[in-house]
Amino acid sequence: MNIIRNSEEKIRAALLVQYDGTGFNGWQVQKKGRTVQGEIEKALEVLLKQKVRTVAAGRTDTGVHALGQVIHLDFSSNLSLQKLCISLNGILDKDVSIKNAYYVPPEFHARFSAQQREYIYIVYNHPLRNPLVLKKAMWVSQKVDVAFLRHISEYLIGEKDFASFCKKTSADENTIRRIDEFDITQSEEFIFFRIKGNAFLHNMIRIIIGTIFDLHGNKKDPGCILNILEQKDRNAGGKTAPAHGLYLNKIIYDPPLSGMESAY
Amino acid sequence: MNIIRNSEEKIRAALLVQYDGTGFNGWQVQKKGRTVQGEIEKALEVLLKQKVRTVAAGRTDTGVHALGQVIHLDFSSNLSLQKLCISLNGILDKDVSIKNAYYVPPEFHARFSAQQREYIYIVYNHPLRNPLVLKKAMWVSQKVDVAFLRHISEYLIGEKDFASFCKKTSADENTIRRIDEFDITQSEEFIFFRIKGNAFLHNMIRIIIGTIFDLHGNKKDPGCILNILEQKDRNAGGKTAPAHGLYLNKIIYDPPLSGMESAY
Repeated sequence: MNIIRNSEEKIRAALLVQYDGTGFNGWQVQKKGRTVQGEIEKALEVLLKQKVRTVAAGRTDTGVHALGQVIHLDFSSNLSLQKLCISLNGILDKDVSIKNAYYVPPEFHARFSAQQREYIYIVYNHPLRNPLVLKKAMWVSQKVDVAFLRHISEYLIGEKDFASFCKKTSADENTIRRIDEFDITQSEEFIFFRIKGNAFLHNMIRIIIGTIFDLHGNKKDPGCILNILEQKDRNAGGKTAPAHGLYLNKIIYDPPLSGMESAY
Repeated sequence: MNIIRNSEEKIRAALLVQYDGTGFNGWQVQKKGRTVQGEIEKALEVLLKQKVRTVAAGRTDTGVHALGQVIHLDFSSNLSLQKLCISLNGILDKDVSIKNAYYVPPEFHARFSAQQREYIYIVYNHPLRNPLVLKKAMWVSQKVDVAFLRHISEYLIGEKDFASFCKKTSADENTIRRIDEFDITQSEEFIFFRIKGNAFLHNMIRIIIGTIFDLHGNKKDPGCILNILEQKDRNAGGKTAPAHGLYLNKIIYDPPLSGMESAY
């Protein structure tokens, strides 16, 4: 089905976006500094000759990468979705690209319609640094006991108050979130953490990873994570792991984007 | 066993070296330009206060990466192998590092003692580009039939004259080489080529990959590769695939380096 549209009619599209976070001050437009949202909105204006605002499923911080960020936007154009992707990638710098585009119903909202978010955190575990994953993984030089990490991760699955794993903001923020899946896999010198949940607090995954490695490094009992959870206080949590190990991997919608009319 | 050595006695060591080839004019020292050998020899001179020459298992071209390059060197020092690695990594820039170091017998030669070499070539196969593998994989936008690639690869296994897959040099060069293993695996949007052989001609793997994709793109019969082989002429071969998809993965020695006294 190829939807033919009047070029003045506003349509809503969702874009699947990938970026290397190294050169960005995060997702969100700011007064100063290069941001992913800023670059995409500039490219959209060049292409469509209209100001277009974008809304992302999750704001990523400085240095955080994305393999599957989802944004939505409303625009009027008779460009096909394929032309939209190809043209935007031609305008955008090399460190950000559109991976796919979808026609979505007007009530679709990249953030509020998202059912689940999946992040990946990558650790390079070897006594000496690896130049090929510079700014793409956290380097941990001490030998890691993955069974220990898995043991801790099991305590974090479920609906819980994650206040100890949230960058401090206002005291009255609702800090209850639900982690549905938390897998840890090892492949040669790499450890991959895959965390899927309904939503995440600011810095939540980086603080979880940092805390797990603090407990591991200090040879604490894995059960200590329960005590940290119970305190509901950021001061109880551990370090914030570096942004450059974190990847926004996937946003899950119901119905799924894969069922919508798409560019590819 | 910790070998205590007199600091004036020359010892031979092998180093396992990793680099991101993007910022280098290849391995070998040249009159102009930054090279991996040049950077490592500069760092060795800073650390050991002596000029040290290094010999690599395989010279890599501009843009080619290494996960397991092996070099050997002779030097006099009472530094431990661990201190040697850590100190060199402290001096070297972020895009090159030592992964391990081994004491090897004086007859060990990084190049001539090598029994086999293993390279990996990475392809990103998706209609649109991916910023996270920029300069780390070749982007192929057309849908790839991996069974077709595998079919061609099978014809290349064994001892053969690979003159059609060699950057032209002198006519009297021996162009017979042996490919022992050639696996092609697919994982999501990536295709990994793993090629192991006794040795490789200049640009041989890049021309093999380029030729395979030429045959695929032009919908030729996989058996055409036999005709190309038989012509023993570089003009019969296809394009040279980009350097940035290629990784020198492993050098195999007998006895293996893993059996030698090492830093890690």
